[in-house]
Amino acid sequence: MIRLVLAAAALAAVAFVTPASAGNTPQEEANKKVVVDFYDKAINQKDFEAAKVHFGPKYIQHNPQAADGPEGLKAFVGFLKSKFPNYHSEFKRVLADGDFVIVHVHNRPNPGDRGRAIVDIFRLENGKIVEHWDVAQDIPEKSANDNGMF
Amino acid sequence: MIRLVLAAAALAAVAFVTPASAGNTPQEEANKKVVVDFYDKAINQKDFEAAKVHFGPKYIQHNPQAADGPEGLKAFVGFLKSKFPNYHSEFKRVLADGDFVIVHVHNRPNPGDRGRAIVDIFRLENGKIVEHWDVAQDIPEKSANDNGMF
Repeated sequence: MIRLVLAAAALAAVAFVTPASAGNTPQEEANKKVVVDFYDKAINQKDFEAAKVHFGPKYIQHNPQAADGPEGLKAFVGFLKSKFPNYHSEFKRVLADGDFVIVHVHNRPNPGDRGRAIVDIFRLENGKIVEHWDVAQDIPEKSANDNGMF
Repeated sequence: MIRLVLAAAALAAVAFVTPASAGNTPQEEANKKVVVDFYDKAINQKDFEAAKVHFGPKYIQHNPQAADGPEGLKAFVGFLKSKFPNYHSEFKRVLADGDFVIVHVHNRPNPGDRGRAIVDIFRLENGKIVEHWDVAQDIPEKSANDNGMF
């Protein structure tokens, strides 16, 4: 039940932060839901077994710190579970174009951390995740503007 | 003429790297072209006057190192021009969802640098750029996989 509530909250958050998504195709909308569920299960719930149902026949990894394939993500989730059990990414916006889904999140390794801004890009084939890129940047203490990184 | 050729090359590169864009609306396609032209003029050609035609009535800046508004970008372009005249970003993929355009680039401050992976997100209103977020990460010397960051 807790998982269901979390997933529903994640999807509600996506609907809230992406008002411009009215032009998405049904496949793009479906792809967004797949990526949000995958991300939430893997990163926030740290439940690799629940997340892995979304993998296609391959998982091409471009994050230079992770090994290629599903096993690389499995190892990362295990690392989070043991070292950063409260590691959490808050969805800021979820966008889709064709086979690509782009996720902009506020990541906090520990509660109260200033955290990092991350953009993940996923590529899907037939509604399954097959490739991943990401870019991460620490949120600085001071900024030249008052708008925040999100 | 050189500028026209550069712009045409940039657009051709976008067409090449975003094969999944067949589902874009005409407005999304137009928004991609606006952002690519803006980015190429500002960052690669360092010609703020040519880039600024794409601004809407405001420019909300979320990059913590830049001041808010068009003046913040103008200052950044001037900084690049004097300190990093060969600063260049190569488009890897350009994606669009509604009013958002997402640009994934390989940035090299100086030729031959390993460089950085950057994702920029722009929001447009009526085909004009009104808001910008970005995330940048140094490309490491070694990677846990052989796929590169792009």
